[in-house]
Amino acid sequence: MRLITSLVALTSLYTAVLAADNGLAVTPQMGWNTWNHFGCDISEDTILSAASALVANNLTQFGYEYVIMDDCWHAPSRDNQTGAPVADPAKFPNGIKDLSDKIHAMGLKFGIYSDAGTYTCGGRFGSLGHEQIDAQTYAEWGVDYLKYDNCYNEGLSGTPQISHERYANMSQALNATGRPILFSMCNWGEDGPWNFAQNIANSWRISGDIMDNFDRFDDRCPCTSVIDCKLPGFHCAMSRIIDFAAPVGQKAGPGHWNDLDMLEIGNGGMTFDEYVTHFSMWSILKSPLILGNDITNMTNETLAIITNEAVIAINQDAAGSPANRMWKRSASEGGDLSLWAGSLVNNTFVFALLNTSPAEQTVGVDLADVFFDQGKSYQTQAYEVFDLWQKDGAGSWGKSIGIIQGGMNVTIGV
Amino acid sequence: MRLITSLVALTSLYTAVLAADNGLAVTPQMGWNTWNHFGCDISEDTILSAASALVANNLTQFGYEYVIMDDCWHAPSRDNQTGAPVADPAKFPNGIKDLSDKIHAMGLKFGIYSDAGTYTCGGRFGSLGHEQIDAQTYAEWGVDYLKYDNCYNEGLSGTPQISHERYANMSQALNATGRPILFSMCNWGEDGPWNFAQNIANSWRISGDIMDNFDRFDDRCPCTSVIDCKLPGFHCAMSRIIDFAAPVGQKAGPGHWNDLDMLEIGNGGMTFDEYVTHFSMWSILKSPLILGNDITNMTNETLAIITNEAVIAINQDAAGSPANRMWKRSASEGGDLSLWAGSLVNNTFVFALLNTSPAEQTVGVDLADVFFDQGKSYQTQAYEVFDLWQKDGAGSWGKSIGIIQGGMNVTIGV
Amino acid sequence: MRLITSLVALTSLYTAVLAADNGLAVTPQMGWNTWNHFGCDISEDTILSAASALVANNLTQFGYEYVIMDDCWHAPSRDNQTGAPVADPAKFPNGIKDLSDKIHAMGLKFGIYSDAGTYTCGGRFGSLGHEQIDAQTYAEWGVDYLKYDNCYNEGLSGTPQISHERYANMSQALNATGRPILFSMCNWGEDGPWNFAQNIANSWRISGDIMDNFDRFDDRCPCTSVIDCKLPGFHCAMSRIIDFAAPVGQKAGPGHWNDLDMLEIGNGGMTFDEYVTHFSMWSILKSPLILGNDITNMTNETLAIITNEAVIAINQDAAGSPANRMWKRSASEGGDLSLWAGSLVNNTFVFALLNTSPAEQTVGVDLADVFFDQGKSYQTQAYEVFDLWQKDGAGSWGKSIGIIQGGMNVTIGV
Amino acid sequence: MRLITSLVALTSLYTAVLAADNGLAVTPQMGWNTWNHFGCDISEDTILSAASALVANNLTQFGYEYVIMDDCWHAPSRDNQTGAPVADPAKFPNGIKDLSDKIHAMGLKFGIYSDAGTYTCGGRFGSLGHEQIDAQTYAEWGVDYLKYDNCYNEGLSGTPQISHERYANMSQALNATGRPILFSMCNWGEDGPWNFAQNIANSWRISGDIMDNFDRFDDRCPCTSVIDCKLPGFHCAMSRIIDFAAPVGQKAGPGHWNDLDMLEIGNGGMTFDEYVTHFSMWSILKSPLILGNDITNMTNETLAIITNEAVIAINQDAAGSPANRMWKRSASEGGDLSLWAGSLVNNTFVFALLNTSPAEQTVGVDLADVFFDQGKSYQTQAYEVFDLWQKDGAGSWGKSIGIIQGGMNVTIGV
Repeated sequence: MRLITSLVALTSLYTAVLAADNGLAVTPQMGWNTWNHFGCDISEDTILSAASALVANNLTQFGYEYVIMDDCWHAPSRDNQTGAPVADPAKFPNGIKDLSDKIHAMGLKFGIYSDAGTYTCGGRFGSLGHEQIDAQTYAEWGVDYLKYDNCYNEGLSGTPQISHERYANMSQALNATGRPILFSMCNWGEDGPWNFAQNIANSWRISGDIMDNFDRFDDRCPCTSVIDCKLPGFHCAMSRIIDFAAPVGQKAGPGHWNDLDMLEIGNGGMTFDEYVTHFSMWSILKSPLILGNDITNMTNETLAIITNEAVIAINQDAAGSPANRMWKRSASEGGDLSLWAGSLVNNTFVFALLNTSPAEQTVGVDLADVFFDQGKSYQTQAYEVFDLWQKDGAGSWGKSIGIIQGGMNVTIGV
Repeated sequence: MRLITSLVALTSLYTAVLAADNGLAVTPQMGWNTWNHFGCDISEDTILSAASALVANNLTQFGYEYVIMDDCWHAPSRDNQTGAPVADPAKFPNGIKDLSDKIHAMGLKFGIYSDAGTYTCGGRFGSLGHEQIDAQTYAEWGVDYLKYDNCYNEGLSGTPQISHERYANMSQALNATGRPILFSMCNWGEDGPWNFAQNIANSWRISGDIMDNFDRFDDRCPCTSVIDCKLPGFHCAMSRIIDFAAPVGQKAGPGHWNDLDMLEIGNGGMTFDEYVTHFSMWSILKSPLILGNDITNMTNETLAIITNEAVIAINQDAAGSPANRMWKRSASEGGDLSLWAGSLVNNTFVFALLNTSPAEQTVGVDLADVFFDQGKSYQTQAYEVFDLWQKDGAGSWGKSIGIIQGGMNVTIGV
Repeated sequence: MRLITSLVALTSLYTAVLAADNGLAVTPQMGWNTWNHFGCDISEDTILSAASALVANNLTQFGYEYVIMDDCWHAPSRDNQTGAPVADPAKFPNGIKDLSDKIHAMGLKFGIYSDAGTYTCGGRFGSLGHEQIDAQTYAEWGVDYLKYDNCYNEGLSGTPQISHERYANMSQALNATGRPILFSMCNWGEDGPWNFAQNIANSWRISGDIMDNFDRFDDRCPCTSVIDCKLPGFHCAMSRIIDFAAPVGQKAGPGHWNDLDMLEIGNGGMTFDEYVTHFSMWSILKSPLILGNDITNMTNETLAIITNEAVIAINQDAAGSPANRMWKRSASEGGDLSLWAGSLVNNTFVFALLNTSPAEQTVGVDLADVFFDQGKSYQTQAYEVFDLWQKDGAGSWGKSIGIIQGGMNVTIGV
Repeated sequence: MRLITSLVALTSLYTAVLAADNGLAVTPQMGWNTWNHFGCDISEDTILSAASALVANNLTQFGYEYVIMDDCWHAPSRDNQTGAPVADPAKFPNGIKDLSDKIHAMGLKFGIYSDAGTYTCGGRFGSLGHEQIDAQTYAEWGVDYLKYDNCYNEGLSGTPQISHERYANMSQALNATGRPILFSMCNWGEDGPWNFAQNIANSWRISGDIMDNFDRFDDRCPCTSVIDCKLPGFHCAMSRIIDFAAPVGQKAGPGHWNDLDMLEIGNGGMTFDEYVTHFSMWSILKSPLILGNDITNMTNETLAIITNEAVIAINQDAAGSPANRMWKRSASEGGDLSLWAGSLVNNTFVFALLNTSPAEQTVGVDLADVFFDQGKSYQTQAYEVFDLWQKDGAGSWGKSIGIIQGGMNVTIGV
């Protein structure tokens, strides 16, 4: 995908707003998470440095607000007396409450990680059977966000009913604290959270973990679809996750989003153009935008991508309607071409072309496809088109590239 | 599909009559529903106008009798005191009982919509856990029909047992009211209602929602079969639903029907010939025939299709035996050809040819295929053939086109 | 399949004997059932006439012993007072006990039919929730055999655990009567009875109902495998059931058999050679051999097939080891060729070649394939081969056709 | 696979150590088991002879320590009074405790077999519902290892929850004895033990039983993947199990291993080179290495393979990280080529090429593939390569074959 455009038109939108009962994530959450870059090697310093960098780089002005501490913050065991979770005193000498206060003092929000199993994926104590004490402790610590993983779940999966109950337990425990805590469910799409989690989670992961790679197949992410996938795994290439997302976009909306996993932009496994595709597609599919790079040490290219305000605006558009794949065609050189289109507020629209073939492609875009959902009257109108990856004369992303009617040709590089 | 014919022969039929314990839908229900055309934008006026149009257009004489108010009739919440459902007082200033009385006064029956979940698909209050009070209120309102949807079901799916229990709860609540209320189950085919719902429902949807389109693939309707489909979705093209229906016709019969979803005829997304195919195939597959267009404003073409008394007679035939697909063949131009055949009462039969290719096709119809189920003696007889989409000399649908033996050639346009 | 041979060799066999706790079906049961020919149209006379014909045709000497009354023997409802099952007094004016006594007096055994659901497939009262009273009544009636069907099961399927419990309830009720009653489970392979029913049933159906046809695909039998098939259906062509049986032969043995469904031999839908294939394959796969034709009115050809004592001997061989498919190859004309081989007692073996292509085929049979399971020493020996569909000089089936070593060529007609 | 090499590099590894709560199998268990060679034909003598041969052949020095008595050690029934398991007094005249003592006296450990069902696969009494008495008795007998099979499980499968509960019952019973007993779970991969058994078992079988054959397809092992396989069966060719293992390696680690089934080396069904492949792949995939041949009567070739200390060292490497398949390509002659790579401690690595085609292949190995997981800095370094199936000058396995950078060509024979 090398182009993303925005079209003006004449309709209005209806979207139901249903979610976990906390009023959060009316648009997809934005922030930063320790895992993709630092893995288990985290500490108070790692997190505060990143928080400072968020502010210093003005990322807060673009909407990035959650600083999320992923796995491995834990002491070897819970408190012997109370059963409450305890943080690693070496990594967090001042405790989590102090860390949370400092982050709040920077105008940011603070997220934590746990797991709906006996252990976390990194082998720390999990929350299964400890939902109340953990939620209560998080609330006391000032936590604003919980990423809740799926390792070591004692076989508690296999039907939507079983998976729902396990995650609903934590959702209800969080709500019972009285503190609004965004619930980011991470069961890797098992049993179809898009079908059952709208009322209990603000977002749900749809697949195994992302790999910082454009399209390489990896046996560790073996399913060809996330529908009824029994081994989500990890090492899922970025464009495979886009394929995975195509059928489930219909199930997301304000307060309940498909999470395509944290961003890899800036981690080095893809080219600039591939990261542009990554950010663009996560945006129009209304995935949470959670940075996963070392934001204390970014190139200008990385910063440019993650601060494209026009692309972010689409992600945060109030209509909350993920783009749909209107067609997908095999390219003769291998890989695929696909057209994605979505509706925004105020009669504007977005479309994107994705090229996963190894060759440059020139593709005819037919407005009958872009506006298939809107019907014939939309398909024949004239539209002003903006390329969201070119800057306009005032230096803002989103340059007008002319008026089109009927369709246009688009060339997409490799 | 451009031709539908009826043949005379010499057999009798046996069909078990089992259904929800209410004596309804001995033949597939017929009527009109608000959703396909009006969506959430409904009111007392919308519904009464449609009811009046049903009568004014003489549609009642063709069997259309249910006027069904789909989603979004609800007040923001249930009655605080009693927990009973409440209608939106702005949309329904005279209440639902008054609306129901007026519809009954026109000689029509009145249907309502709810959902076996926490919320309806449009985000209104659902009936899960409120089955008794809701069924009782519907009965008090004079409701004759309940369409019962599947959104926000709290993960209560995954095995036939789980899905059955959720829908049986409402079925039993309806029966307990003492009022005969047709139970139109809409769980989109999850867990195979054709296997488990014969005793609890008068009809069950088999797929995701229909799209007003002949055959376009849409990622939002991703399954290639409805057997064990884990994401029924919506935007299912009309001819894809016909494919979906092929294996499950065997499970339907008097009192318990496969519901291929409401009709799109007159909504503008297909050509006249495509709508003829739509109506013909819904008819021979014994789907409920629920109009989904604006019947206050119809073209003559639309009216002609939905009032073809010969096609309706096949749908309402007392044998209640859905047609079967006798063969399906790929066309060289893409798409498929298929032959469908079914048994009617009084030793008459129906067959249809369906062409989803982009080219006109001339197909040899072998009576050995049409009468495969009936055996050799039937395969060699002579039959008078009637084309149900031509009018006879008296102006009635169903013109005799001659006597055939062995087989005939049929040309099917695009 | 046009050839079936028997080879002499030098090994012994071990087979575990586990089954429902009744000591029955040490070899696959043999008999006759009303359904395939008479359907619902049965009476005392139908059944006694068939029993008399079994005796008159000397079929008892070949092992056919069970006379099984399938669906539709029922009165409209159970006994009001006791809840016990009641037979249709018009069809069975002397009652079932009397019928059973008469059948026993002929030296035969008597079987009955019911269903693990609310209704039988023909719409009569089912046994779900009535297991004790029904089993007790059957025992009082002198019943020796129960075929137990799967219609209208109220959604009680979806995991092996759910299906097992439903069928185990009847199995235990039968055992509790103290009368040995062969339990013929008929859940069409749902949830894999080959995995869970060895201890509760003497046989279990593996697929939807057979169709009297060699190989026609029918949408009503839609699954391509019986492993995890969610819609077994019916109208399964004979050779499709053979395909279905290939992977599950490993799970059968003395007392617990795969049931490939009742025989169609003599019902007219296949040629003589096709019925020879049908009987041969059912035999070597150790299916119960339950006749399904009108045995009061048989051709000599039909009688010749069902009384081939050499083929029956393989079915009834004490080793109880179903043949395995050693290879399957596509034929250039369409259809497949396959080689099947099985072990018998006393170091004898059987192999069969199956040709589902429309052309005559000459196939090289390599003893390395036939004796793949037995190992190299067996593969290089010399064997005397008997063609079980030719008669020897004394008029018995099974003519020696010479000594082979290494392999042989076999020609199989259409 | 005809080559296996080891590379030196510069990284470190993180692996979570989680397992059944017994501290065992920190590296994959090694030993010998009666089944593959002796089947049910076992006795005290069989086992003691094998134990003596383990010692006499110095196999203990290579890590082989468990002597495991598989199925058929049982008396016809449990003790009437206590319900405790009883051994066959004819086969084990001195009892199991005595046998265990003798094995311990040789410096070995003793393993036993049972089944999480009503019967064992060989038809002996199973442990389902007898977990406490059985575990207690095993502990009293001095048992160090339990292989726990899956036959006749009364339908207790179908969701991870159901299967987990059945196996967790025995796991907890073993732990409750206070004796460390390695728990080798053998449910053939049903319901995905790689997803649910890490906390309850030290290893879990992933597939149906192995067949002593390189790559023959057999209908008795019908699934094309072990993910959601509903009929694991047996007669699974060695290289099919390797394919099965590819996606699930990610789930294994110290204390919880994927078990690819017992070794067939020395049983005669494969060539020397094929057995080299077998041992190499089991090693790098971190399968338990349990010999299955008659170790009292081995060829020098067999002994040479199973005592390759370099290959064993990879299996027992402390990192405990199974190799991953980096790519798989179809060969033009049929079969596949694949590249596997894994990380070891001390910045060393292993890779292997597997050739299942019938022709010799020369394959370019690109270090960008070998070190895909490690990243670019690793991909461009120089490495010393050791061929683990050649001996160095001192007579030890693992000859240096030079320094490579970027990649190398490898020729793999048939």
